[in-house]
Amino acid sequence: MNAEAAPAATPGTRRPGGRTARTRAAVRDAVLTGLAEHGYPGITVEYVAEHSGVHKTTLYRRWGGLEGMVADALDMAGEDDWTPPDTGTLAGDLRALARHTVDSFADPVRAAAPTAFVAAAFQSAQAAEALRTFYTVRFSRCESIVDRAVARGEAAPDTDAGAVVRALSAPLFLRLFITREPVDEALADQTAAATHAAVGSGAYRRPAPTTA
Amino acid sequence: MNAEAAPAATPGTRRPGGRTARTRAAVRDAVLTGLAEHGYPGITVEYVAEHSGVHKTTLYRRWGGLEGMVADALDMAGEDDWTPPDTGTLAGDLRALARHTVDSFADPVRAAAPTAFVAAAFQSAQAAEALRTFYTVRFSRCESIVDRAVARGEAAPDTDAGAVVRALSAPLFLRLFITREPVDEALADQTAAATHAAVGSGAYRRPAPTTA
Repeated sequence: MNAEAAPAATPGTRRPGGRTARTRAAVRDAVLTGLAEHGYPGITVEYVAEHSGVHKTTLYRRWGGLEGMVADALDMAGEDDWTPPDTGTLAGDLRALARHTVDSFADPVRAAAPTAFVAAAFQSAQAAEALRTFYTVRFSRCESIVDRAVARGEAAPDTDAGAVVRALSAPLFLRLFITREPVDEALADQTAAATHAAVGSGAYRRPAPTTA
Repeated sequence: MNAEAAPAATPGTRRPGGRTARTRAAVRDAVLTGLAEHGYPGITVEYVAEHSGVHKTTLYRRWGGLEGMVADALDMAGEDDWTPPDTGTLAGDLRALARHTVDSFADPVRAAAPTAFVAAAFQSAQAAEALRTFYTVRFSRCESIVDRAVARGEAAPDTDAGAVVRALSAPLFLRLFITREPVDEALADQTAAATHAAVGSGAYRRPAPTTA
């Protein structure tokens, strides 16, 4: 998850119903602040009511409860207009994207809410589903890096773009969320170089369909 | 984390004090069962007392509380004699290790406790530290795969073995613990092939020290 997981208020309007975009954004902001301060499940509906100015009754009626608010905050994080870097080469794009991920988590304050989302997914099936959707969309956008590389002749047309962009992020996420080891620009560059070499070797080409 | 995260009772004797190995193993077994059934923080000291036959007062005195018991269960998981596969080639070892990880999580019952450990690390600093130690040791053992490849001339002597074994596991862990996408043998093989290609390309060679 990148810094864009907590974008400035650009409230989405996808949800049906009479809920105003402003209310939704206020609840989202309170959820992000609460997750950053208290984590999940430390945050409460009372906290969100107090910090959003939205009445508890309204929160329960519209979001069902805390799980629904956390999931909706994640949905909104995915509604930004973020696009991956476009440097003109596959090697450059992979390096810029990996560095961007490292930068996003360098500041503990900025990293707190995204980290809390990952934690919440272990406690709440609704949050887990929202997180899965968030990353499906985010990685899907990142695939444009591979698509452009294919167009430039830098990668085989049958390259598994989804696997490539996941392989790029995975060593960073492993250290950030599981082993809690440091990540830095050198690691970003190493991961990018490894992913680039693997693409060049054809390791990410999809297996040819077997003929009957 | 592999299936060996929950080995058969081979109680360690590292901890000081009069605690018997049998008591420690009983508490560990109760913690693993509780984590698998209820996750963290769903498990309680009462649960561990009931399932281990060890009195609550003893549990609090010896482990401080639930966090200490979870951390100790992780410590014990790291005290097994697991070693990584040794197939004779780097490509074979990487593939066997990746498949082993996939296999370990294929059965939801076997996967439950390791997953709960990862979840607990988000809630408990003590669990997080134990998890970090567990993986430091586990990845360190896996580095023998790279060491043997270097000895056979399959990898450069200055290959960053720790980065290689983390890169192999990371795409699997990303899907298991964060995006909750399926993992299978094809993914294991793809990840192994990519890691192997990246090693061969020199992407994991440590940068030469700069001379003054």
